Amino acid sequence: MSRRGLIVQKFGGSSVANPERIKRVAERVIATKRRGNDVVVVVSALGDTTDALIDLASQITQQPSERELDMLMATGEQVSVALLAMAIHELGEDAVSFTGAQVGILTDGTHTKARLVDINVNRVVQELAKGRIVIIAGFQGVNLNQDITTLGRGGSDLTAVALAKALKADECEIFTDVEGIFTADPRLVPQARKLDAISYDEMLELASLGAQVMQARSIFVAKRFGVPIHVRSSFSPREGTMIQETSKAMEDMVVSGVSLQKDEAKVTVRDVPDKPGMAAQLFRELAEHHVNVDMIVQNVSREGSTDLSFTVIKGDLPATLRVARSVSHRIGAGEVTTDEGVAKLSIVGIGMRSHSGVAARMFEAMARERINIEMISTSEIKISVIVRKQHAERAVRVIHKAFGLEKSRRR
Amino acid sequence: MSRRGLIVQKFGGSSVANPERIKRVAERVIATKRRGNDVVVVVSALGDTTDALIDLASQITQQPSERELDMLMATGEQVSVALLAMAIHELGEDAVSFTGAQVGILTDGTHTKARLVDINVNRVVQELAKGRIVIIAGFQGVNLNQDITTLGRGGSDLTAVALAKALKADECEIFTDVEGIFTADPRLVPQARKLDAISYDEMLELASLGAQVMQARSIFVAKRFGVPIHVRSSFSPREGTMIQETSKAMEDMVVSGVSLQKDEAKVTVRDVPDKPGMAAQLFRELAEHHVNVDMIVQNVSREGSTDLSFTVIKGDLPATLRVARSVSHRIGAGEVTTDEGVAKLSIVGIGMRSHSGVAARMFEAMARERINIEMISTSEIKISVIVRKQHAERAVRVIHKAFGLEKSRRR
Repeated sequence: MSRRGLIVQKFGGSSVANPERIKRVAERVIATKRRGNDVVVVVSALGDTTDALIDLASQITQQPSERELDMLMATGEQVSVALLAMAIHELGEDAVSFTGAQVGILTDGTHTKARLVDINVNRVVQELAKGRIVIIAGFQGVNLNQDITTLGRGGSDLTAVALAKALKADECEIFTDVEGIFTADPRLVPQARKLDAISYDEMLELASLGAQVMQARSIFVAKRFGVPIHVRSSFSPREGTMIQETSKAMEDMVVSGVSLQKDEAKVTVRDVPDKPGMAAQLFRELAEHHVNVDMIVQNVSREGSTDLSFTVIKGDLPATLRVARSVSHRIGAGEVTTDEGVAKLSIVGIGMRSHSGVAARMFEAMARERINIEMISTSEIKISVIVRKQHAERAVRVIHKAFGLEKSRRR
Repeated sequence: MSRRGLIVQKFGGSSVANPERIKRVAERVIATKRRGNDVVVVVSALGDTTDALIDLASQITQQPSERELDMLMATGEQVSVALLAMAIHELGEDAVSFTGAQVGILTDGTHTKARLVDINVNRVVQELAKGRIVIIAGFQGVNLNQDITTLGRGGSDLTAVALAKALKADECEIFTDVEGIFTADPRLVPQARKLDAISYDEMLELASLGAQVMQARSIFVAKRFGVPIHVRSSFSPREGTMIQETSKAMEDMVVSGVSLQKDEAKVTVRDVPDKPGMAAQLFRELAEHHVNVDMIVQNVSREGSTDLSFTVIKGDLPATLRVARSVSHRIGAGEVTTDEGVAKLSIVGIGMRSHSGVAARMFEAMARERINIEMISTSEIKISVIVRKQHAERAVRVIHKAFGLEKSRRR
């Protein structure tokens, strides 16, 4: 941050919720510029603009065309970039704003959840060379047909990381309303501690586990291309948390944090025939309907069939049910049931790989509190469990304590 | 309207002010489509959106960059097109929306008041061929640099007329909140009558005289390329007023209507030296500052100098004063004064060309009511006078009566 270079800064919707906040963002951007850096800024839509636009659409139709929804939603970020450019001008610096289309953010054709294909940074490089601050609308791009697309949840982070990669930026700063990545949500665990650094892999797990700071997709792209990310508060000058390749110091730590996700529902398909291809068929069709399946659990079969459970974001539940029931019928499986009264609780840490007994310590802590575990799923650096929603916050606190996360072990 | 063809329909901001009205517009568009026509729809921003956006900008800066202002304002129409497409889908017809940039509405680089250079209608033609209703954001385009531009006041009308021309449309329907063109504002003159038809030239004068129905620029383009315009109400199925080449019937009529404009201010430059080039210098510099000067009056000189008066839209008054004072100083003229307490009142009619005594009849009617005339300016088919604002509405009524405009003379 202090050395000179090219910095990409991303400000989310709450950072630009009103003219006063936009002015503060302008000051922050200008300060970075005046330290001698080239600055590219990515902004989201003002505060609740996107929700307001979706509400407007819902007054017209319950099933809006996704192409038209993208057309509508993309205006939110366009408003932000223009206003931020004006605020920067007002403070005496040169700045120029662009839509995703104008800077060649090319995506595939999947409206509302488009994938990035390419970024043509020529125009951005030209404008930087003129000494201008370049402001780019997050969350949006165009497909080959020049139709406007949007990148789905957390899309502005993805825009920022992808631009940082394409521009070979020295750092990508993600400004948010928290001070960085914590060992647990400080609203749930007052003793939660801010981490100075975290690895891409840990952050990837945390993100997919509901840490609202960044979406998994952006971290995945950052990891793949080695883009260093600095998550920090837009309301404070303090350093936040660096997301980067594993450093030696990190490996001292068994568990980096506890996370909680309450917006998922559990879906169970009963009596799935125990033969090859059954699960594949279900999850392929769900993917075709753009349903993101999170946790999948299937136990060993009894009497030639088994129950298959998985979790999805609640908003995807209607589509999930339609697909699951149709597939279940076709493959000769049984009833499909859903349960929205659950929460997912996870611990993440690269240190898990080399330390045994981590799962045991987690489960014991929950057992002492008589919190029942309904599903378990583990990866190399993560353990997730599904519990009743009403016990979830208490579980976060006891696990945080069980791993001593309130004490700093990193230097 | 009833025969099959290609129809361009333009709906202004009040026609799409809220979801209910957007649905009504959708019904109207679909009805035209189902009568066998290809339909291209141009829409403005929802209700007061543009004002709200400008207000947002004004909370950030008093002197917004015009490029960024265009970036900001263009979102208004983009919201409208997406919502109208959704409303049409909801009613079971196929439709697709586009921004100005997407359909290649190319303009020059004058932000906030851009001029149309070209329209590439390939994409529109392709979509029409698929049987789709094509919805295009009015008021906006892009320059060669792909920067978003806007066309200034009445820009959506211009978009519609220019598209009608480029697509060789059979008709361009301008939907508005009035039923057509009247002999005077019905709110001022209850006896005012709707005209079935009016010539481009008369409409051009009326438009430049403050008839809010359409801006002069669009009518100018329509006249130049012979695009027939049908001005009609979005709230009523009745036929409105056709704007077209002069027909024989029209020439029977001496005066077509009386109009009133209250948003202009009078500017006077005192003691302008009576030598060549003085006025030219003033009006060239005003043009360079994009000030539209309306009425210009200069009387014969006395003692080597003369007073020069003209009117401008009140919003342009600060810029006008800066320019006029600077020029006055340079050319050795005197004081520059302004007067916002005036109104302009005009009568328009192709028949004037061949009828004498029209001016006399107008002035006599005003004299009987003891309404003083401060400035007079005439063209071949128009007489305009400047009066005190408080007498203006009364003057409209007496002139309307003096020319018997309440009685239909056309068949």
